[in-house]
Amino acid sequence: MGKEIERKFLLNHTKWHNINKTEGKHFRQGYILTEPTKTIRVRITNTQAWLTIKGISVGASRLEYEYEIPLHEASELLDNFSESALEKIRYEIMHQGKLWEVDVFLGENEGLIVAEIELSSEDEHFELPEWIAEEVTHEKKYYNSILTIHPFKNWSY
Amino acid sequence: MGKEIERKFLLNHTKWHNINKTEGKHFRQGYILTEPTKTIRVRITNTQAWLTIKGISVGASRLEYEYEIPLHEASELLDNFSESALEKIRYEIMHQGKLWEVDVFLGENEGLIVAEIELSSEDEHFELPEWIAEEVTHEKKYYNSILTIHPFKNWSY
Repeated sequence: MGKEIERKFLLNHTKWHNINKTEGKHFRQGYILTEPTKTIRVRITNTQAWLTIKGISVGASRLEYEYEIPLHEASELLDNFSESALEKIRYEIMHQGKLWEVDVFLGENEGLIVAEIELSSEDEHFELPEWIAEEVTHEKKYYNSILTIHPFKNWSY
Repeated sequence: MGKEIERKFLLNHTKWHNINKTEGKHFRQGYILTEPTKTIRVRITNTQAWLTIKGISVGASRLEYEYEIPLHEASELLDNFSESALEKIRYEIMHQGKLWEVDVFLGENEGLIVAEIELSSEDEHFELPEWIAEEVTHEKKYYNSILTIHPFKNWSY
């Protein structure tokens, strides 16, 4: 069983580019199912792949079930069962004892950078790094499932 | 990767009841996704559970990917992500060197018995057991994904 509690933020790009970070990890991911109440994601890195089922968001929480699957099958699943995929580089940053995952999107979503922090409860306290800008936890357009269909480069301002 | 080639038959119930068979295995299964082009199934036996992704049928063939998952998670997935589930007892019968899987449906589908044989090619030869009646491989109403939504007891004759 999984319950994922996650908050999501945009970044100050200049400050982000100036911090020290270790090498990121390349992700390619697509969705077999994108519904308001559930999504099924296939995610591939250079060495591993996962199938992930997520439920509807209630506040910052949602049910999540994740299974590692063979890399070549994940690639076939993306080719045969998902309409589109997105690519991003994920960086992991520790700040005040908490892990931040920062996704620098590529391709159709280039220019978008999003930071996520996973919490163990909705009201857990955490410190915002100085490179964090506004919170976008509840904005659906930043869902990765939505970004595959309606990518950043097609957004109007 | 999986490619499943399967043919499906109705049975002569009297002949079926009269043959010797070992004990069947109880299955409870539901669908997270039922689309014409793809289905995602959760199946639970007494001791094991699987998540199975199947593609569109082309002739008697379809893509199939199956992953074993923890039993308690499968049960949560059925409760949270599938609209309905079906139950059946599966019997395995060897006939002329080939394995037949016979599903005796329960609950809303009681009265329905369906036999399946898995083949390694579309034109593979096999002998029909004497308890087999007509073939229903291409009849969608016998798809388990359809039987969960439109069960046998609601069929009109």
